Amino acid sequence: MCLGLENMSKGTVVLAYSGGLDTSCILVWLKEQGYDVITYLANIGQDEDFEAARKKAESLGAKKVFIEDLRAEFVEEFIWPSVQANAIYEDRYLLGTSIARPCIARRQVQIAKQEGAQYVSHGATGKGNDQIRFELTCYALYPEVKVGTGHLTPKHGIPVPVTPKAPWSMDANLMHISYESGILENPKNHAPSDLFLMTKSPEDSPNVPDMVEIKFNKGVPVMVTHLKEGTTKTTPLDIFSYLNELGGKHGVGRIDIVENRFIGMKSRGIYETPGGTILYHAHLDIETFTMDREVRRIKQDLGIKFSELLYNGFWYSPECKFLRHCIAKSQENVEGKVQLSVFKGHVYILGRESPGSLYNEELVSMDVQGDYDPCDASGFIKINAVRLREHHRMEREAQLKQ
Amino acid sequence: MCLGLENMSKGTVVLAYSGGLDTSCILVWLKEQGYDVITYLANIGQDEDFEAARKKAESLGAKKVFIEDLRAEFVEEFIWPSVQANAIYEDRYLLGTSIARPCIARRQVQIAKQEGAQYVSHGATGKGNDQIRFELTCYALYPEVKVGTGHLTPKHGIPVPVTPKAPWSMDANLMHISYESGILENPKNHAPSDLFLMTKSPEDSPNVPDMVEIKFNKGVPVMVTHLKEGTTKTTPLDIFSYLNELGGKHGVGRIDIVENRFIGMKSRGIYETPGGTILYHAHLDIETFTMDREVRRIKQDLGIKFSELLYNGFWYSPECKFLRHCIAKSQENVEGKVQLSVFKGHVYILGRESPGSLYNEELVSMDVQGDYDPCDASGFIKINAVRLREHHRMEREAQLKQ
Amino acid sequence: MCLGLENMSKGTVVLAYSGGLDTSCILVWLKEQGYDVITYLANIGQDEDFEAARKKAESLGAKKVFIEDLRAEFVEEFIWPSVQANAIYEDRYLLGTSIARPCIARRQVQIAKQEGAQYVSHGATGKGNDQIRFELTCYALYPEVKVGTGHLTPKHGIPVPVTPKAPWSMDANLMHISYESGILENPKNHAPSDLFLMTKSPEDSPNVPDMVEIKFNKGVPVMVTHLKEGTTKTTPLDIFSYLNELGGKHGVGRIDIVENRFIGMKSRGIYETPGGTILYHAHLDIETFTMDREVRRIKQDLGIKFSELLYNGFWYSPECKFLRHCIAKSQENVEGKVQLSVFKGHVYILGRESPGSLYNEELVSMDVQGDYDPCDASGFIKINAVRLREHHRMEREAQLKQ
Amino acid sequence: MCLGLENMSKGTVVLAYSGGLDTSCILVWLKEQGYDVITYLANIGQDEDFEAARKKAESLGAKKVFIEDLRAEFVEEFIWPSVQANAIYEDRYLLGTSIARPCIARRQVQIAKQEGAQYVSHGATGKGNDQIRFELTCYALYPEVKVGTGHLTPKHGIPVPVTPKAPWSMDANLMHISYESGILENPKNHAPSDLFLMTKSPEDSPNVPDMVEIKFNKGVPVMVTHLKEGTTKTTPLDIFSYLNELGGKHGVGRIDIVENRFIGMKSRGIYETPGGTILYHAHLDIETFTMDREVRRIKQDLGIKFSELLYNGFWYSPECKFLRHCIAKSQENVEGKVQLSVFKGHVYILGRESPGSLYNEELVSMDVQGDYDPCDASGFIKINAVRLREHHRMEREAQLKQ
Repeated sequence: MCLGLENMSKGTVVLAYSGGLDTSCILVWLKEQGYDVITYLANIGQDEDFEAARKKAESLGAKKVFIEDLRAEFVEEFIWPSVQANAIYEDRYLLGTSIARPCIARRQVQIAKQEGAQYVSHGATGKGNDQIRFELTCYALYPEVKVGTGHLTPKHGIPVPVTPKAPWSMDANLMHISYESGILENPKNHAPSDLFLMTKSPEDSPNVPDMVEIKFNKGVPVMVTHLKEGTTKTTPLDIFSYLNELGGKHGVGRIDIVENRFIGMKSRGIYETPGGTILYHAHLDIETFTMDREVRRIKQDLGIKFSELLYNGFWYSPECKFLRHCIAKSQENVEGKVQLSVFKGHVYILGRESPGSLYNEELVSMDVQGDYDPCDASGFIKINAVRLREHHRMEREAQLKQ
Repeated sequence: MCLGLENMSKGTVVLAYSGGLDTSCILVWLKEQGYDVITYLANIGQDEDFEAARKKAESLGAKKVFIEDLRAEFVEEFIWPSVQANAIYEDRYLLGTSIARPCIARRQVQIAKQEGAQYVSHGATGKGNDQIRFELTCYALYPEVKVGTGHLTPKHGIPVPVTPKAPWSMDANLMHISYESGILENPKNHAPSDLFLMTKSPEDSPNVPDMVEIKFNKGVPVMVTHLKEGTTKTTPLDIFSYLNELGGKHGVGRIDIVENRFIGMKSRGIYETPGGTILYHAHLDIETFTMDREVRRIKQDLGIKFSELLYNGFWYSPECKFLRHCIAKSQENVEGKVQLSVFKGHVYILGRESPGSLYNEELVSMDVQGDYDPCDASGFIKINAVRLREHHRMEREAQLKQ
Repeated sequence: MCLGLENMSKGTVVLAYSGGLDTSCILVWLKEQGYDVITYLANIGQDEDFEAARKKAESLGAKKVFIEDLRAEFVEEFIWPSVQANAIYEDRYLLGTSIARPCIARRQVQIAKQEGAQYVSHGATGKGNDQIRFELTCYALYPEVKVGTGHLTPKHGIPVPVTPKAPWSMDANLMHISYESGILENPKNHAPSDLFLMTKSPEDSPNVPDMVEIKFNKGVPVMVTHLKEGTTKTTPLDIFSYLNELGGKHGVGRIDIVENRFIGMKSRGIYETPGGTILYHAHLDIETFTMDREVRRIKQDLGIKFSELLYNGFWYSPECKFLRHCIAKSQENVEGKVQLSVFKGHVYILGRESPGSLYNEELVSMDVQGDYDPCDASGFIKINAVRLREHHRMEREAQLKQ
Repeated sequence: MCLGLENMSKGTVVLAYSGGLDTSCILVWLKEQGYDVITYLANIGQDEDFEAARKKAESLGAKKVFIEDLRAEFVEEFIWPSVQANAIYEDRYLLGTSIARPCIARRQVQIAKQEGAQYVSHGATGKGNDQIRFELTCYALYPEVKVGTGHLTPKHGIPVPVTPKAPWSMDANLMHISYESGILENPKNHAPSDLFLMTKSPEDSPNVPDMVEIKFNKGVPVMVTHLKEGTTKTTPLDIFSYLNELGGKHGVGRIDIVENRFIGMKSRGIYETPGGTILYHAHLDIETFTMDREVRRIKQDLGIKFSELLYNGFWYSPECKFLRHCIAKSQENVEGKVQLSVFKGHVYILGRESPGSLYNEELVSMDVQGDYDPCDASGFIKINAVRLREHHRMEREAQLKQ
């Protein structure tokens, strides 16, 4: 361990505990070193037997066990701002893991403060981004905390899973599942067809699209309605879960990318983000429909910057807080309804309406002259051309001199 | 006509002639005014009876008729740089019309200079972007030229098409077809299912994917190979046409968007860009695979700026020329092969390889420690946290004061 | 006149009236055409005999005369946000004229609405930016208004100034005086030494510096104190006027530049902005002192964009409103005191302090180890070098292949 | 030492040796540990007794001593690209130290490779930027190298300077001197008046300005001429040294700032950069005079990014190389002459001319109508206002609804 928990004056550690082998080993090792260990397991929508994990932690000597359902706050406080931002890393990755880390670590720090623990620990190690995201959040919210991480060898007395582990690693939450490492490390290898757990293969998905309408207010979804079945969802968690189900059924949101990690390596990752992908497209549509062009342009840059910060673990940084504020401000008039269909892995925008859109059907109509004078366009063009003509003049003069 | 061609001392006009009603009217009217009219029709891949158009122009009194096959230069000089740039307007539109205009207008200006014509004219009118793109190109390349446009009423003696026009307008070229106006002006209306001419409906497309490998060099495709059939294409025009065919077969590249025009209106457009969509995804993949993270980040901003310039008609501007140079420079090491499948409207990246990638399988491997020291990561994180902790300190002090 | 006021059904025009020859001619001409003319003269700090102008307007037939003192709102609502933004165009011009136009035009539009006038008119013509700034403000705040401008020949009966006009044109307000045109149009010509009206020549300015302390709160000055004399100013208008006086006395804020106008021409302008220049430097200092590095970086980009918008006349645009909001948000902690001296045309920052600075003297001290572990820096560097080493590896491999 | 040179298998170290106490201690200590030590001292224009340093190194046991005159390459390869970029960090700091580090470290790495040394070492330690700049350069150019740094206590037998050290630290080279630490750490303290070594106090500088003309080609100075005395300099080193002399004589280029270090701390620094400040202003002027507005705008962003990279030590990075290329490309037409005066700490631009400027005196003239039609401006404005009016319409509708 870099931090050398072994050398510290003993005290209490809050350990982010997954129930798996790695963090069980850390638990046992910390106990052996003389620490009091409080385990903390966040429910952010992953498929997990939380009670079994509780028992396991207790049996391994955890002094206290926290199992916290963070799903609603994950959607409202982390996914929704990302939807507003159209957050996407390197044009493709929707940041499902990146935004889960600060949500998880925030609660861990709260527990540490409340329980008087001086230490936090976790199992995210190695060459990844998650250690960074986790630790930056801890330092930002609890600057005095000591963070201990560890690569540990399996300890005796820890139940080892009988089924062989898949030849890759995965991270799952309400927003997505990511797959990397192992046989996926060779970027040329195609992903095995049985990899995906959250989405059906488009080849096996229904032959008939589903059509839904998503209603937005201030840039976040407030209602989703299935156009044929009439099903309606209105709470953030219900809306997101329903879109996950729908996207999963139609194989939406699978990507296979090579991305640039914060530590400077390129890594290959495969992701499935069904509901997040639907929302990404729907929000992009309602935003462009309702937002002024130039505000949108500025906000686009802010969103790109925001996405980088999320990826690199800076959710709790002054600049990210500033950007969240600015982006939220930009969303004040982003309201209306988007109709879309999902089918065979793809999302199709079908139409949109808004009570407050800048879209002016009469103004844009080719059949209505209205207030628009074509001669103004000629003037507009000629003034825009002043600069271009001057440039041409200069180039010609330069050529003549040669 | 804004420019008042009627008041000019007569001379020669090169008219961008489509063979349709509008430009035929302009031709007749110009003749009536006493101008010599040279018609010019560019073949940039649209579905057109060029010989019929030639005859029509001649019969209406064109002094000279130019029909020019620009397809190869359209791909090599306009589509390829856009692929290198990942050019996309407002995150969705691949700019198929935008980049065709400067290609068409450039040749028109060449003809005007060569034929000693003082005037150019075209049929792009109204509230759109195309008049701007056309005229800015003309002024940039031939600053002394006079541009005349016109809204004209149908003239007698001009053959009128018998079949009623579709209740929308379209613009077609090798890269895409766009649909707008008419019944599409209401942004809520779904597009009719028989709208699309270039792509099959995903619902009717094959139930089996096609897999191809695209080879890139310096950021442009140099070969495409069908993985099962072994078909291979190697010239730019062949590659692009083949990808169009493939994408069209599988319903790839349909979008329905509201976009912001240069003149400040929002307009609804529907586009199908089969080959361009495949290339967009493939290039994004090989680029991220081979380009340094920070170069990519800078280049991403340049690409966004570049896309705006194309949309607004500034292909021939000093800044666009500068950006093309910089973007091309960024592509020097963008080489390698991307394997992908197209299926039911979607493009799936399957894997990639490159002789010169920055991807280092050993470095990134979770199973190989190698040169990478986890303690360096701890230092990296702690230094990154210095700023965050200071911010927290200040906020706490501020709270205490209150 | 482009708009053809001569063809309009007659009504009431609010004319921005300067008291000078040009706008007097417009007044007379409008009367002759049958319009009712209301003149409006804004006091934004220029040196003017307002009562003489009132009498002149009345004698020329103005139906009503408005003379409005906008100095306080000019400082608080236009200069202060520009100080917060460090607004500067093309790295040099502090935008003194640019931000006066929307201030003036806003009141004119208010008068037009209140008086039921359908028209507004002004004397800013020709190739400049001011026509644009004026008219964009009018259209933005009163979309139905008709704007008439005119190049008019002198009318009989209008008193012509006896003293010959200076061989350049100038625009003066509380923030600055600009000089352009005439003998200044040749960019090689040095400005004559008697040009400047607001600042003393540094060669003739005092041989002893003046030292002041400027106190900021939320990024705007709230108090200025002369360190030796103890003079104190606390209202925005007093603060700004005092800094003008001080800067003027010491020859601060003179620049000679070529700038790029919105209409695409380059023009040569000479400016003197005494108080604004002092504030620019002082604000830059307190901002960097109190603002997080990365927030500052984002805000810097917003400020550049903001400056362009001001220059181009878009103060009243959705994007400029959005930027003002974001920039104001960034200033929440920008508080403290800056001590500086002004001497012979230059501003010297001497020191600064803040109750809420992120500056941590102990943390940065070379004499105090504190919490900072140099080994963390090594880790930080090595992780940052991962990417550079990979790049080197790839380049070496590429060379070996050749 | 973080890297633990004490534990390495012994070999050869190239030590960046200053002749001062710190690096002398490192030399002795390395010898004691059993290393062969090669000392390397770069002459980049600092005031130093190089022969004394050589003797000292030899007397302390250096196996080999390199003293390298890098002044010409420092100017041509590091200062000139920074001038082209208008490189400035956080709007104020001209990066004099930042760009010297890669110049020095590059040669050190060359020596290490040539001498077969596996190690490099330096005395830049603690909380500063220089360690980062130094080490990133080493890793980038010699990825296998091991870098050892050290805080060492004084060793016996090393001559200690008799004169007490100033109560601050400084770093000097041809471009600037920086002062920090010690009594300067309190950001409120004014700098003592005897601090500056490179520039005269403006209060004591001549009462008559000096006027020079600087001729640029491709964005770098190629000749400087004193307008009265006729003195002319034409080599890069001569030009820069002459401008240093001139600026120093007139007290030009002093700043007192708080800046944000890469490691996340704020630090106070005082700098004097006489020649660099003159060139910054002169280049800004000729660039705006000759470069298209929109190219300039893009290049401005690139220059800001470039400046950050220099500050943070990334001169030898793929992105910095890319930016240097793009920026150099933008300078192709930046040629001409700028006349300026230096006086009492300030630089005044007086006029400029260029054989290839985009400045068109006739076009911009208020006295020449020329090709410019004022009605085009009205059209230009009205089209620009379309968006603003729509925004107003929407806001009004929103208000009516409430």
